[in-house]
Amino acid sequence: METKEAINVIREYGAKLRALRHAMGVMQCDAMVCAPKNSAPYRAATGAVLSGEVYKLTTAPERVEAIELLSQMSGETDELTRLEVKELKKELDMLTKLPPELYREFNRIKGEASAAWQAAKAANDHSMFEPYLDRMFSAARTLAQHISPDKDPYDHWLDRFEPGASQETLDRFFGSVREGIVPLLRRVLEKPEPDTSFLHGHFPVEQQRKFSDSIMELMGIDRDDCSIAEVEHPYTMGLNKHDVRVTTHYYEDRVAANMFSVLHEGGHAIYEMGISDELTGTALAGPASSGIHESQSRFYENMIGRTLAFAELITPVAARFFPEAFAGVDAVRTWRAVNAVSPALKRTEADELTYSLHVLVRYELEKLLMHGEITAKDVPCEWNRLYKEYLGIIVPNDSEGCLQDMHWGSGLIGYFPTYSLGNAYAAQIDAAMRRELDADALIRGGRIPEITAWLGERIHKYGRTKTPEELVKICTGEPLDPKYYIDYLTEKYSKLYEL
Amino acid sequence: METKEAINVIREYGAKLRALRHAMGVMQCDAMVCAPKNSAPYRAATGAVLSGEVYKLTTAPERVEAIELLSQMSGETDELTRLEVKELKKELDMLTKLPPELYREFNRIKGEASAAWQAAKAANDHSMFEPYLDRMFSAARTLAQHISPDKDPYDHWLDRFEPGASQETLDRFFGSVREGIVPLLRRVLEKPEPDTSFLHGHFPVEQQRKFSDSIMELMGIDRDDCSIAEVEHPYTMGLNKHDVRVTTHYYEDRVAANMFSVLHEGGHAIYEMGISDELTGTALAGPASSGIHESQSRFYENMIGRTLAFAELITPVAARFFPEAFAGVDAVRTWRAVNAVSPALKRTEADELTYSLHVLVRYELEKLLMHGEITAKDVPCEWNRLYKEYLGIIVPNDSEGCLQDMHWGSGLIGYFPTYSLGNAYAAQIDAAMRRELDADALIRGGRIPEITAWLGERIHKYGRTKTPEELVKICTGEPLDPKYYIDYLTEKYSKLYEL
Repeated sequence: METKEAINVIREYGAKLRALRHAMGVMQCDAMVCAPKNSAPYRAATGAVLSGEVYKLTTAPERVEAIELLSQMSGETDELTRLEVKELKKELDMLTKLPPELYREFNRIKGEASAAWQAAKAANDHSMFEPYLDRMFSAARTLAQHISPDKDPYDHWLDRFEPGASQETLDRFFGSVREGIVPLLRRVLEKPEPDTSFLHGHFPVEQQRKFSDSIMELMGIDRDDCSIAEVEHPYTMGLNKHDVRVTTHYYEDRVAANMFSVLHEGGHAIYEMGISDELTGTALAGPASSGIHESQSRFYENMIGRTLAFAELITPVAARFFPEAFAGVDAVRTWRAVNAVSPALKRTEADELTYSLHVLVRYELEKLLMHGEITAKDVPCEWNRLYKEYLGIIVPNDSEGCLQDMHWGSGLIGYFPTYSLGNAYAAQIDAAMRRELDADALIRGGRIPEITAWLGERIHKYGRTKTPEELVKICTGEPLDPKYYIDYLTEKYSKLYEL
Repeated sequence: METKEAINVIREYGAKLRALRHAMGVMQCDAMVCAPKNSAPYRAATGAVLSGEVYKLTTAPERVEAIELLSQMSGETDELTRLEVKELKKELDMLTKLPPELYREFNRIKGEASAAWQAAKAANDHSMFEPYLDRMFSAARTLAQHISPDKDPYDHWLDRFEPGASQETLDRFFGSVREGIVPLLRRVLEKPEPDTSFLHGHFPVEQQRKFSDSIMELMGIDRDDCSIAEVEHPYTMGLNKHDVRVTTHYYEDRVAANMFSVLHEGGHAIYEMGISDELTGTALAGPASSGIHESQSRFYENMIGRTLAFAELITPVAARFFPEAFAGVDAVRTWRAVNAVSPALKRTEADELTYSLHVLVRYELEKLLMHGEITAKDVPCEWNRLYKEYLGIIVPNDSEGCLQDMHWGSGLIGYFPTYSLGNAYAAQIDAAMRRELDADALIRGGRIPEITAWLGERIHKYGRTKTPEELVKICTGEPLDPKYYIDYLTEKYSKLYEL
């Protein structure tokens, strides 16, 4: 096979794989947004056929040969092809270094563990989940040892979701988080709670929908490229840069949940929409990592959406849609209310200050589980101990405690840290951006798209052509340093709570 | 290849084809309901790849061999396999009797003619569409001659959408329609118009949504098997019997459009949901024909939804959701209003009496076009002449006249007659059912599911295992006879308009 022929081979397979993944992505969105309940078994059957085809195409000997050839001849191809081949080779190694029966076994355990988790959560009985959780971690360990035999298995999984991440860097990172946030939280909790009462009341869904549209407009989101739908648990899916699906959930008794959902998911969407046209149709037209993706959602949610400047911009808009609730509410009151700190049980509802403490608990536990230093039956006790220690709260039951997240049951081991990394990236990026732009003036003036342009040039456009480390460097001039995150939180909450 | 092996081959290909078509169906629904506007080009690219795969799998030599073998050995297989193989052979012949370049050419012309139709309609300029329309009919003729060389080309297309239909039967059918309905319409139009004013006003979408839910509940539709979404032009898609998608459109200034949309599309949905479980996963788990499908939607819309009995059932429900509009409205007033006759330009908005006259115009024109007796440039003049003759109305422009339907531009030639056949089947089925059931008492008493059970046993459960002709025979004891349709209309409108 010649270089040119090999390139054609990967392009042809790429088009088919893309089409299948596109269809599977749409089916996934449809399942959340539109499909009737009983559609599930038939969709699962179709999903199995299509993923079988994806597996077959991905590992087709002709394609494998082309990728191997191009990997060895990286000097002969242009930069984009070289990067794409590297990406494809990495993905391929995950599959081909694994005996097919192990791959199937891992997927089978995921399916069973997911179902067991769901049942255990509903029954508030962790013991129902324990054998599956142990099996899940054991399978994850085996899989890691096959793909990355020279690596610690947890490092394999960390790197899988956040290329470049390892226990060495994350131990240091979470050390700073613990030492920085735990005492800061204690000081905040000594202060009086801000008034959040006006954020609760009656907010009709119809009005909230219009409010969402206004927020997306302020964010500069082109709705011809990005839809919004309603689901139980909001997410964003980027099928391609001109087809991004934001979702939200409306609670009629409160207004902030949807507002920050739209800002958060809108941030994810802006990233997907900003990937350079030149990457369209290649394996590089995706996000650099889960952590970088999260950094963008958190940026719009917190570094923009929870500033005093944004409160000044949004308070009159909110008052237009909810005149009663926002009567007499000024920007400072909005700002204080949306930044209220309140340690609670659920990670997904956590405030900005306590969020990474929730992640810290999970990081410590999955490290112990992966190395067999604890087993599933130790999880509830350890979980509750750490929540008491870091967040100062008592976990009343496992459903709201160690059974709250679906991640481990779904095989997402090593994923949690990307949430915290996202926050830390965002804080460091914010500091760098504020050295160049008067962000508050832009936000206050309704000029958020100028901030998007800044981020677009430094992050969004690159898609997957740069590593997280390279992107942080381009944006901020230095590698990730948790100091920025801790400083950001310290300064912000000192001001808010007059520490 | 042995019989057993051949059966396995068609099952294996069947599973893959079903998965691909399922995914394509979901993408189509998603495009109408959820997807942002700019998603179209990328979706088209994915659609092209997936239909290419469908073509490749459908015509795979191994599969073709298995189907040919089983066709010849129909004595050795069970009845269901025999029927399925017959169905698969028919579908295969459509593809294999056609040189692939002709198939591609036909699809190319469809794409171009669709676009030209859209532009011509927007510009109100039929001449922009004419060359494409001529090319479309010419391609349809060529295609018919390849697949059915012994048949008149229009007969080929009629049979394609309604197995068993031909000009011989349809000339007779539409003759009765013309002779029965045109004079009846003249008599109706001499009478005073009923009061429909209360159907116009302000009907908030939120309330209409709840009204739709109530109608679907009265129809006995299990919402776990059937969703409802909002689109520009309502349709129903049955992905499988546990995943049916009804759509509707809400107009805030009128209530009847959505009400009858839900009844009509709900009828389509009930058919799909009623197909026997034993057919699931085979090529027989579909509707018998377009005409039979339409007969079921029309049945729920008209033979149930436009009766006095249904007016008695629904008027108090409507009054609950729209108390102002329905204040003092009794069932008789509702019944008269929803049956108001008013000849107008648009087929899709036509009343029950004039509906088939719209179809008659199209039938006459496509017959002439197919046989080269007129060409595209003659269409506007002929169209307007026939609308004057049959409906007594003047067509003010081509956009609202001969450019109103997308069908011809999309290659749907010979499809229109199925709409009228559906109405006629429904009337004949209604007459047969009323010999066995006290339909009005069931409707009035909110017992529509008992009517569904009657239809289910005679039509729905059979899926594609019976021809339209066989189904009409099972249901009514005789072949299609347009007399029932004309009698039904004559009796109904004589009562309504006191002729």
